[in-house]
Amino acid sequence: MTPTPAPPAWAHRTTDATAEQLAAVDAWWRAANYLSIGQIYLLDNPLLRDPLTAEHIKPRLLGHWGTTPGLNFLYAHLNRAITDRDLNTLYVTGPGHGGPGMVANAYLDGTYTELYPRIDRTEEGLKALFRQFSFPGGIPSHASPDTPGSINEGGELGYSLVHAYGAAFDNPDLLVACVIGDGEAETGPLATAWHGNKFLNPAADGVVLPILHLNGYKIANPTVLSRIPEDELVALLRGYGHEPFVVTVGFDGEDPRESHARFAGVLDEVLDRIADIKTAAAAGTLEGRPAWPAIVLRSPKGWTCPPVIDGLPVEGTWRSHQVPLAEVRDTPEHLQLLQDWLASYRPDELFDADGAPFPATVAAAPAGARRMSANPVANGGQLTVPLRLGDFRDHAHPVDPEARGTGTAEATRMLGEWLADVIRHNPDNFRIFGPDETASNRLAPPVFEATGKQWNATVLPVDEHLAPTGRVMEVLSEHQCQGWLEGYVLTGRHGLFNCYEAFTHIVDSMFNQHAKWLEAASEVPWREPVPSFNYLLSSHVWRQDHNGFSHQDPGFIDLALNKSPDIVRVYLPFDANTLLSTYDHCLRSTGYINVVVAGKQPAPQWLTMDEAIEHCTRGLGILPWAGTETEGAEPDVVLAAAGDVPTLEVLAAAALLREHIPDLSVRVVNVVDLTRLQSEDQHPHGLPDREFDAIFTPDKPVIFAYHGYPWLIHRLTYKRAGHQNLHVHGFVEKGTTTTPFDMVMLNDLDRYRLAIDVLDHVPGLAATHAQLRQELVDARLRARAHTREHGTDIPAVADWRWPHPDTDPNRPSTAKEIR
Amino acid sequence: MTPTPAPPAWAHRTTDATAEQLAAVDAWWRAANYLSIGQIYLLDNPLLRDPLTAEHIKPRLLGHWGTTPGLNFLYAHLNRAITDRDLNTLYVTGPGHGGPGMVANAYLDGTYTELYPRIDRTEEGLKALFRQFSFPGGIPSHASPDTPGSINEGGELGYSLVHAYGAAFDNPDLLVACVIGDGEAETGPLATAWHGNKFLNPAADGVVLPILHLNGYKIANPTVLSRIPEDELVALLRGYGHEPFVVTVGFDGEDPRESHARFAGVLDEVLDRIADIKTAAAAGTLEGRPAWPAIVLRSPKGWTCPPVIDGLPVEGTWRSHQVPLAEVRDTPEHLQLLQDWLASYRPDELFDADGAPFPATVAAAPAGARRMSANPVANGGQLTVPLRLGDFRDHAHPVDPEARGTGTAEATRMLGEWLADVIRHNPDNFRIFGPDETASNRLAPPVFEATGKQWNATVLPVDEHLAPTGRVMEVLSEHQCQGWLEGYVLTGRHGLFNCYEAFTHIVDSMFNQHAKWLEAASEVPWREPVPSFNYLLSSHVWRQDHNGFSHQDPGFIDLALNKSPDIVRVYLPFDANTLLSTYDHCLRSTGYINVVVAGKQPAPQWLTMDEAIEHCTRGLGILPWAGTETEGAEPDVVLAAAGDVPTLEVLAAAALLREHIPDLSVRVVNVVDLTRLQSEDQHPHGLPDREFDAIFTPDKPVIFAYHGYPWLIHRLTYKRAGHQNLHVHGFVEKGTTTTPFDMVMLNDLDRYRLAIDVLDHVPGLAATHAQLRQELVDARLRARAHTREHGTDIPAVADWRWPHPDTDPNRPSTAKEIR
Repeated sequence: MTPTPAPPAWAHRTTDATAEQLAAVDAWWRAANYLSIGQIYLLDNPLLRDPLTAEHIKPRLLGHWGTTPGLNFLYAHLNRAITDRDLNTLYVTGPGHGGPGMVANAYLDGTYTELYPRIDRTEEGLKALFRQFSFPGGIPSHASPDTPGSINEGGELGYSLVHAYGAAFDNPDLLVACVIGDGEAETGPLATAWHGNKFLNPAADGVVLPILHLNGYKIANPTVLSRIPEDELVALLRGYGHEPFVVTVGFDGEDPRESHARFAGVLDEVLDRIADIKTAAAAGTLEGRPAWPAIVLRSPKGWTCPPVIDGLPVEGTWRSHQVPLAEVRDTPEHLQLLQDWLASYRPDELFDADGAPFPATVAAAPAGARRMSANPVANGGQLTVPLRLGDFRDHAHPVDPEARGTGTAEATRMLGEWLADVIRHNPDNFRIFGPDETASNRLAPPVFEATGKQWNATVLPVDEHLAPTGRVMEVLSEHQCQGWLEGYVLTGRHGLFNCYEAFTHIVDSMFNQHAKWLEAASEVPWREPVPSFNYLLSSHVWRQDHNGFSHQDPGFIDLALNKSPDIVRVYLPFDANTLLSTYDHCLRSTGYINVVVAGKQPAPQWLTMDEAIEHCTRGLGILPWAGTETEGAEPDVVLAAAGDVPTLEVLAAAALLREHIPDLSVRVVNVVDLTRLQSEDQHPHGLPDREFDAIFTPDKPVIFAYHGYPWLIHRLTYKRAGHQNLHVHGFVEKGTTTTPFDMVMLNDLDRYRLAIDVLDHVPGLAATHAQLRQELVDARLRARAHTREHGTDIPAVADWRWPHPDTDPNRPSTAKEIR
Repeated sequence: MTPTPAPPAWAHRTTDATAEQLAAVDAWWRAANYLSIGQIYLLDNPLLRDPLTAEHIKPRLLGHWGTTPGLNFLYAHLNRAITDRDLNTLYVTGPGHGGPGMVANAYLDGTYTELYPRIDRTEEGLKALFRQFSFPGGIPSHASPDTPGSINEGGELGYSLVHAYGAAFDNPDLLVACVIGDGEAETGPLATAWHGNKFLNPAADGVVLPILHLNGYKIANPTVLSRIPEDELVALLRGYGHEPFVVTVGFDGEDPRESHARFAGVLDEVLDRIADIKTAAAAGTLEGRPAWPAIVLRSPKGWTCPPVIDGLPVEGTWRSHQVPLAEVRDTPEHLQLLQDWLASYRPDELFDADGAPFPATVAAAPAGARRMSANPVANGGQLTVPLRLGDFRDHAHPVDPEARGTGTAEATRMLGEWLADVIRHNPDNFRIFGPDETASNRLAPPVFEATGKQWNATVLPVDEHLAPTGRVMEVLSEHQCQGWLEGYVLTGRHGLFNCYEAFTHIVDSMFNQHAKWLEAASEVPWREPVPSFNYLLSSHVWRQDHNGFSHQDPGFIDLALNKSPDIVRVYLPFDANTLLSTYDHCLRSTGYINVVVAGKQPAPQWLTMDEAIEHCTRGLGILPWAGTETEGAEPDVVLAAAGDVPTLEVLAAAALLREHIPDLSVRVVNVVDLTRLQSEDQHPHGLPDREFDAIFTPDKPVIFAYHGYPWLIHRLTYKRAGHQNLHVHGFVEKGTTTTPFDMVMLNDLDRYRLAIDVLDHVPGLAATHAQLRQELVDARLRARAHTREHGTDIPAVADWRWPHPDTDPNRPSTAKEIR
């Protein structure tokens, strides 16, 4: 394990860059460029000992050169500054396509060989380094988890800056140098991520240095920000709250020495400015929100590659985006161009006879954990301190087993009370993120008794709970919430993202990318597992009382379950105690994405805390107090539920059946952990068939009331013996602004419909109970008419009571509702 | 049908606003506010004829007041300007929560009563207007499709500005007044949408007037843009390329007359500026990209509601976001406050004895189609002109039925050639949108022979295909591409969005919202169907040769199929001719979202155009030339495929089986229209069970090779008789940067694995052909080793030939590969 670096000095430059230092920067840059091109093209002859031939060239030329020389340039210059100032620096690169550059720099740092000893500092090592890139069984083309020093793949563009902020929170001694591609800068998530500076505390958090890299082109088009007048560009960055420093290098055949000198001067000025801000912040003399510096670097796309190929301009254009010379194996002219291009970096001056870099080649490198590729924050699991979790049992909702469902509680508010304790006990490594919904999702008021919402913009006297530092981060951008928490957990800290269920879809693609990162990272031996990414999805599909159809979407679960079963967990706790037990488990876990869907509205409570813990540990189970089955005999029918509203409807349906067909043997099952429904070979939580059949029976009808799209349950259970007897009710995309009970009726999830389904699927029952069936149909229509006429929910939703009829003769009769 | 308005004059003001005009604006504003509050609170007594009692109040108080008075204020002022200048104006409101305001304005316009005669201009009409809002069986709380004049629900925030640009393209005479909420402004999609002005042509397109409405608060927090210094805010808008006009109204007890006068002056100045730009653009004298004006309106949230309730500030704070007085039915003090609040608008001065607005109340209203609630562009189906489509058969790829699979073609490039014709024949109502991927997805070069990429920022000599006007819109933001096309089709025009398959997930939530809009709109009788939203997803999961795991995700189809079967269509054409036939169908359709997944890489071609048309018309079918079944008898096994790569592997597996077990009766099926797999009761395209069984058999093993996640096929077919015999292979989330054949092997989708699966599932076959099975296993391992060692694809992927063995003895022997 790399030791944690000491705090940086946040000092001014010790000296302007010397000619010697700039020569070292240039040597590094040439070496990194050489190694990058080698990865894209070469199978063999890595040091050009012989003239290049077709056999030295990879059969499929893959990779992205265009962004790479700029990334290498910045890496080399940051190295000098880090060495000069002893900076603790994380390098986040938005254009992750520049993967070969990131690998090259880590190789020059020595980190790559430390982690992959096979890739050593010999000619053979270089050959292996080159061969593995974008090669079957090798490494991917982007800055993936295999890449030392990276927390941001950049394969899907847009998340570098939001990751940078996530990494900086609660890391007061960290400089996050964040290279933003000008293509990436056009994405929505990046465009709003600039506002992260209104949420960063200059004393308690680290520094984010945005470096907007304008190389002018995307795959096939110029970039917007490279084609607006400079006064607009400068205004834009000032509008984002930054002090911009624009520097242009490498055009019109500029001598690289001039480029280096100019950029080194700007970087020093910028870092001096940062030192001033950090020093003032530490001294408590900083007034208001500082205008942090930001760098705009203009450089030619594909800088240093052949200017013209086949008569067309390449350097400085989009044509250098991927592989500038595409026909190297087949075209002698291209082969010669490649030979000349590689030779232009003077590899004989960079690498010794054995293939190792000369000391002068890597003279710019910092040592140990100061190397950006070795910064432990980029391998956050190394730094993870488990949360100090208070006993969630202390926050149990009291449930009387003889009077279940009496009274109500708001599940998420109960969770909030425990989370307030988590906040108090973990003041520097736990945060809650939300898009302006933490109060709406009812984690507040409790959490705001323990902390504030961190906010560094203007505060007015009327505001509540805003604070310069605080554990709750709220901005109306799901992308920022998701990205901040990703950056936070990838650097070893803990947190949760609370969100309206429907709008979690806004970050579908970020979820996908994070799941893919975790999946790939789990196969990288030197990466320690990072804390799980925890979702709390509330304001769910069934209780969008204030909103309408646009807020009704339970499909995030479907998306989540398409990703690796090694990574994804989905929980549907159905009351406060099951939510508490679930979340305790989530906050203790590492390496997962936990999707937890829970209600926020006042709702009946069902399980004692001991029962809840046992139930959640199993992930699903029979609710013996709710059914009518006889010990030791299979029931006639299983009523199953997943989710709080479906469970309420199932319990009510079971009560209807108990009252009207007391001799029907009904089993009631609740599922908290959805992946238990899958087979063992599909998910590590999958229930063995024998256990599944023991609960659901192999051949009895199962009426399943599910929180989301019903077909998901079929997709999870299609391998089960009893699958053809499974009848799932769920959200079938029928919604509007209406009462909660109208919602369940619109989607055929209501108690009456479930009871009717039992009559229809238990053989013979519909015939013997035709009158009851008609009564249920009539009662259902009456309930719908009632809610439509009066605009009120029917009492049974809010006030349903749960002692059994045989234990409490005074309970309100469901029969009255039916007849 | 409302007649299309005449072109506007784009003229300067005829006069400064007179006191009389401002009095009319104020009357309108008071009336709209009164009607908005009435909708939120009142069941009865709509004109306060009697003192309010609890019985007059709705039992559940739902809705959002906070944003509404600002929206009403802007509507009233725009009315005056429209009347003065004869402007053709679409009003897009980002804060769709202000639904009651939009309904109120449409009621005052008279449009509401025209469309919903029951809601007439009487006291009974008012009562019905109030009651229906957020009431079961009534209308939703947001600016939904029920709301006249709206194309943007605003339930999910962030898309107003991008919709505004989409509406403005090719509508040169249209002013789109786009109110952006300051909460919405924090979202990523909105933050990047500002750059739409670099893509708008001042002469050929309409005008977008952004009105950033800073009322200071979201649900529970201040907004970022309301809490930065004004110089930063102004710099931000200048950075976005606008000329900002900041105006503050309504604070510190300002007399509304002063607010009206100040805002009217600014609006006139802004519209004069717009008139200057449009006039210059029309005259061809405009130099460069204009700095279009943008308005920043600062007004108190919940403006005109009770300033203090229960001792806490409400007006001007987040507490006015939803229902400021929550306890009206139960608290006499709240009831009195509501009475006073409603009375403060002086309803007796606004509505006559019958309940109709006095002429003076609606004196600000424009007439006919100039009313923003009656602008036909907001009911785009009214204006839709079907595309003039050239015969796609003219672009057929020649396929010799006796030598299928010989030679290759790039399917999307073939489509591009036809689309170039579509562009030529439809110069003003068809556009192609893409995130910098139109060339990468191979629609280019053909489409760029017909048109350019519209671009209004700086152009350099080295650039290609950029043009002041053009039918292709490229920006590296999937959100912008999606939103522009939504705005474009919702206003009656046609287009397609081409995107890397994996990154379509970036717009998952926008897809959801558009699907919900179309579903709800289809139930609104006065809304005409708009052209379908067409996706072309290419660079798909199996051919991410240049990229890695982050680019491999076929899950968008899963997301799409969760939405209403009345709206969603999913097609997987497997060669160029099926793609052409599919897309011709898509571009002719209305009211759908068509998801088309197609390959871009050189690939073998299978069907003649006549066959392709027949196959696509059926949606799925047997490929008789590929199997070995005997006419009239059921086959031993069915090999089915959906998608180009899976079909290639299935055909190769069938060839292996034909060669080695010639007496095995194999049927080969291809599915283009995925929803054909569903039951009739699940999707209108669903195949009747009888037909399904005729193709897939009720009881024979079906080995199904699917493009995406395999469980989707189970989810679609779980009701089918033969479901338990279905064995699906697909993408199981295994990927990296590797060869195409390594990809199919990683995911068990390769020909060898499929053939082995046949041996394992046809009863007895594994036993009788144990040696063949072992040879297939060995061949598979050798193929994997080959691709891993050499980094080349195995020839069989690229060069697979297709005459049958019995028709072409010279074909490369698959046996050679196996042994």
